[in-house]
Amino acid sequence: MAASLRLGRAADPERQARAVQAIHAAHLDGLVCASASEVLLLSGYWPVMASSVVVATADAGVTVIVPEDELELAEKTSWASLVPYKPAGLKTLASPVDLLRPPLADVLNDLHLGRAHLGLQLGHGVQPASYAVMTEYRSSLPALLGQLLPQAQFQPCDELLEEMKAVKTDRELGLLSHACAVASAGFAAAADAISAGKSEVDVAAAGQAAFDTTPKADHLERSYGYFYCMSGPNAAKASAACARTRRRVIEAGDLVMIHANTCADGHWTDITRTYTAGTPTEHQREVRAAIDEAHASALQTIKPGVTGSDVDHAARSVMQARGFGKEFKHATGHGVGFAAANPNGRPRIHPLSPDVLSEGMTFNVEPAAYFDGVGGMRHCDVVAVTKDGARVLTQF
Amino acid sequence: MAASLRLGRAADPERQARAVQAIHAAHLDGLVCASASEVLLLSGYWPVMASSVVVATADAGVTVIVPEDELELAEKTSWASLVPYKPAGLKTLASPVDLLRPPLADVLNDLHLGRAHLGLQLGHGVQPASYAVMTEYRSSLPALLGQLLPQAQFQPCDELLEEMKAVKTDRELGLLSHACAVASAGFAAAADAISAGKSEVDVAAAGQAAFDTTPKADHLERSYGYFYCMSGPNAAKASAACARTRRRVIEAGDLVMIHANTCADGHWTDITRTYTAGTPTEHQREVRAAIDEAHASALQTIKPGVTGSDVDHAARSVMQARGFGKEFKHATGHGVGFAAANPNGRPRIHPLSPDVLSEGMTFNVEPAAYFDGVGGMRHCDVVAVTKDGARVLTQF
Repeated sequence: MAASLRLGRAADPERQARAVQAIHAAHLDGLVCASASEVLLLSGYWPVMASSVVVATADAGVTVIVPEDELELAEKTSWASLVPYKPAGLKTLASPVDLLRPPLADVLNDLHLGRAHLGLQLGHGVQPASYAVMTEYRSSLPALLGQLLPQAQFQPCDELLEEMKAVKTDRELGLLSHACAVASAGFAAAADAISAGKSEVDVAAAGQAAFDTTPKADHLERSYGYFYCMSGPNAAKASAACARTRRRVIEAGDLVMIHANTCADGHWTDITRTYTAGTPTEHQREVRAAIDEAHASALQTIKPGVTGSDVDHAARSVMQARGFGKEFKHATGHGVGFAAANPNGRPRIHPLSPDVLSEGMTFNVEPAAYFDGVGGMRHCDVVAVTKDGARVLTQF
Repeated sequence: MAASLRLGRAADPERQARAVQAIHAAHLDGLVCASASEVLLLSGYWPVMASSVVVATADAGVTVIVPEDELELAEKTSWASLVPYKPAGLKTLASPVDLLRPPLADVLNDLHLGRAHLGLQLGHGVQPASYAVMTEYRSSLPALLGQLLPQAQFQPCDELLEEMKAVKTDRELGLLSHACAVASAGFAAAADAISAGKSEVDVAAAGQAAFDTTPKADHLERSYGYFYCMSGPNAAKASAACARTRRRVIEAGDLVMIHANTCADGHWTDITRTYTAGTPTEHQREVRAAIDEAHASALQTIKPGVTGSDVDHAARSVMQARGFGKEFKHATGHGVGFAAANPNGRPRIHPLSPDVLSEGMTFNVEPAAYFDGVGGMRHCDVVAVTKDGARVLTQF
């Protein structure tokens, strides 16, 4: 192993220290993860094909077994020891798991993990799209680890990882903040493209092209994302968990929603703006005033120590008082960063959420109103909790 | 369950019959899968958030438990019985797996699977990107099934699914062929955008925008994909498993590679064309002639009964004879359709591949030459095996 080991050139001492602390606090010797977001969390590297495996220990640092095709990217963005391997080649038809086995065995052996207590991802989770095709190890990675370390003990570390991902380091906040700035270029172009007679696909494509080409992303390794446009009755459907651009032609007076999920090297945004094609009606102005007030109320409530339900209540009570309680169909927000959205992610800004906000948490604030068959309006910002309250990362 | 059951409006009797036959042949009572490509294979529906679960039985048809947000899409594209459920909501903070439990229990009970032999996805696999965020059940779905069906028997069905996905039905061939036609719009625009002084991101964005807005996709529910541009020395790096567009400015004389992975409702393409910025050099013409001849040789070899290694040899021997054997760094092709690429996918068009071609198989043919630090050229088509030989689906 030592011969091929390379060192990443990035650094995040705050994250490294927190990982060690979390592993100790959980009475573990280490974590072994293969989901791309967790490899990013623990090593700084966001795998492309999601076939990398990270081994983070309490005492001996972080190692990533990385396909050699991705080594150049990993070196630029990670602080881990990197062990390149060939996941395929002209001289073998062995399966990806069989090709992972020798380098993984070497790493586990070098780290003396034969009798270790290790945390694994065994439960439900989410993974942001990192490439057109991504690896899923499913049960094969726990099975392989059981074979390689027959005397080790394994336990789920899913909750631990969610807690770690919830609170960002300064470096991670910088990347998320930059991701928001890069996305702004797409929003400006998409908003400019809105007019009656244009289709949703035209507007979304204008936003996408501006995002894809903005010089704001020049210094990122991977600036990546999705722009969506939903107009009129399609904007009413935007309360769904998933956005979708359709072929619909925008009509004068429509509410037109631009939604984006974008990332800077694996740190994801969740942003929505809503415009009117033409002059807003009185009703549209009332909805916007309610959403603006709900948004302001949520932001004023955010500070360390309050709960997710406090923030949800701050927004929801305004929407209710303004007569749009029923139309505000979803939670006020959810954790954002290592994924654009995550049903298990912290903090949940939900009516029932006990999650206590702390400095460095990032989430979205997305008051909205959806009118079936007619239209929908949402304003979704990404915010960070600071000791002085909310900081909006999507200042545009 | 019966009260909320809906029926999908699509049909693929050929796929339904093959699924029943495969389940019988494997001495199973059914398959339970949650990966989006396998839900597509068995039900016609390509899930967005990858949180749907399909239960396909030998005797009682196919049922999909689908998040209610996705029901409209599922009804349009599936032939399964559809059971909508709420994976989240304002009145609960229960986990996604806890919310899946009741509808899954109902379906398994209604289908009398208490003592069944069921196939599960337990091994390594790949998943195409279906949305900005996707679900991974990891070990939680096998664990839940074990709780719900304590007397059932479970076994891996990963290989069975790969075999099923390898051979397309006429309907699936039609969708894949249409996906290729839709992608052609992006290639035309990207090729037009190539010129010295433009950057890779500009060229890729031109292809992406044309693809995103082409009327050829008007009748698809989800026309979705990624365009990449790699020029000069970056094209040499395109031998990697993953493509990447960078900020590099194209120079006169560069080889410029346009690569795309796109899909029509979950049926994926893998396509590459290479152009020269300006007039090709003598060397570039030689490389192109070799690739063209290797491509033709592979196509002439393709017919039912030959092996993947026969086809690889047909292409590789030409590249070797023309002096570019060493520069042709990867296999001649791999199965394409339910994913753009899949290391376990059949047929493998690889020097060692024993996979026997049969009618309905689809794969790419991608002879190429990569010159480190200088450039790279690849021509990648999607082809289908017919009884008369190869049919190229990417006729542009």
